[in-house]
Amino acid sequence: MDGFAKKRLDGLAGMVNSRLEEIKQKVLEKAGAQADIIEAMWYSLSAGGKRIRPVLVLEFCRICGENAEDALPAACALEMVHTFSLIHDDLPCMDNDDMRRGKPSCHKAFGEAQALLAGDALLNFAYEILAEDGNLSAETRVKLISELSKATGVMGMIGGQVIDTTYAGEFDEKLLLDMYSMKTGALLKAACKMGCISAGADKPLIEAAERYAEKLGLAFQIKDDILDMTADEKILGKPVGSDEKNGKRTYASLKGLEDSRRYAEKLTAEACGELERFPDNGFLKQLSGHLLSRNY
Amino acid sequence: MDGFAKKRLDGLAGMVNSRLEEIKQKVLEKAGAQADIIEAMWYSLSAGGKRIRPVLVLEFCRICGENAEDALPAACALEMVHTFSLIHDDLPCMDNDDMRRGKPSCHKAFGEAQALLAGDALLNFAYEILAEDGNLSAETRVKLISELSKATGVMGMIGGQVIDTTYAGEFDEKLLLDMYSMKTGALLKAACKMGCISAGADKPLIEAAERYAEKLGLAFQIKDDILDMTADEKILGKPVGSDEKNGKRTYASLKGLEDSRRYAEKLTAEACGELERFPDNGFLKQLSGHLLSRNY
Repeated sequence: MDGFAKKRLDGLAGMVNSRLEEIKQKVLEKAGAQADIIEAMWYSLSAGGKRIRPVLVLEFCRICGENAEDALPAACALEMVHTFSLIHDDLPCMDNDDMRRGKPSCHKAFGEAQALLAGDALLNFAYEILAEDGNLSAETRVKLISELSKATGVMGMIGGQVIDTTYAGEFDEKLLLDMYSMKTGALLKAACKMGCISAGADKPLIEAAERYAEKLGLAFQIKDDILDMTADEKILGKPVGSDEKNGKRTYASLKGLEDSRRYAEKLTAEACGELERFPDNGFLKQLSGHLLSRNY
Repeated sequence: MDGFAKKRLDGLAGMVNSRLEEIKQKVLEKAGAQADIIEAMWYSLSAGGKRIRPVLVLEFCRICGENAEDALPAACALEMVHTFSLIHDDLPCMDNDDMRRGKPSCHKAFGEAQALLAGDALLNFAYEILAEDGNLSAETRVKLISELSKATGVMGMIGGQVIDTTYAGEFDEKLLLDMYSMKTGALLKAACKMGCISAGADKPLIEAAERYAEKLGLAFQIKDDILDMTADEKILGKPVGSDEKNGKRTYASLKGLEDSRRYAEKLTAEACGELERFPDNGFLKQLSGHLLSRNY
């Protein structure tokens, strides 16, 4: 990424972080004995994630012709759902990961019961934020909630997690790609579409955003697989080799590193092609390339 | 309850059961490898609960002058949220209960990972159902989602669960009653209000429903405490004495059985007083009395 793109990425991520902090302060004002769980929720929410999903929400809203600010509720809701999934994925009955983003995972820091409830509360809060946002029309709010709930549910992210948990050792290429499309793809797709919806964009634009997200999501997941085999643990912020340790087949383990790299590059190029329909797409193209070349 | 009320209770619960079954079939049609999780979700959803919350939704819609059917999405969404909370409460890191409603609890039947995800999926699905319901206006859907999410979140049911988990051994009367009002009261209140909202009722009616629910919810929880000390395990469908075993202070253990019974009676009478504002309130009055005298 050039200096301009880096600055915009930081700017958009900063907008999300500020809004999340504002929401926390508002919730804390009303909270009594629930202050503990709010700390657990925001511990994970502020753990220095890349903020890719909320940045996509804001940027798609902007290139659809509206202010990025209009999409902040959708961006925060999406980051809450993403964080909920990380907290629950890390639990002992799931992946049993002690570290996340370079810090102890939520259940290591707050105990299992609080981590379970913090995840539940974040998922639920995403819908509260969208339903309560007075700046958007009721129609837009309903569209956003519908989009987010379908992307999160049994036909989306949670469904992908189910398949991952149940069949991880026996994947063939088709089931693996289906799982990726649900587990990672669905939420990235929701991010891009929710940005367009927040801007009141029309159907052809929303569909182009969806195709972009589909390809980007798959490239993103394959890159994750590659990093799990090759990354520097200190830079990645979590243990490497966990897929192999857990007996999980991934695209990279099925196809090899070289084929995986080439496929991720091809998908990223195709994703960028879908951006031609949007004006002022320079930042998104750079971001897509950056996700492909990242080492964390 | 007389024969008439018993018949109406069965009729309303039957409507909810049919709609839930319809929803399951629709989801299963689209599901591939996620069929397992759908079985886990409906295993708990169909485990023969009393259906008190969805029945309240339907009946409040009816006595506000609309068809009970109009409130079926809200009723099903609420039962999903209630069931999600039971599944997660039963997990080993929470109450670690092996039995629920006379059957093995969800994680005993499907494993911990699937139970965790089934709970997540039910919570999420509640919002999908409300957002997608084409029979209600966008405004009404947003009001329902807002009501449900606030009742479920850190200031409602989940917040009550947090306080219960963190402070159960040290409750004084005030914190205990606050916890009851969140953990049980919030969702019962949401049930009554969502029935009114589904009917498009005006504010004074919604507020009367809220006051009714507040009193009924507290009576309901105190009755639960009494049953945990006195019930027949076979009729209750879950182990008795679990509060004492887990070192939990309850209203009944703080105040004694006799005072608790008297207070629950007084609250139920006051709750019924709030129903005077509604026409055709006979069934709800009988249901309230039935909840007080139940032995399960």
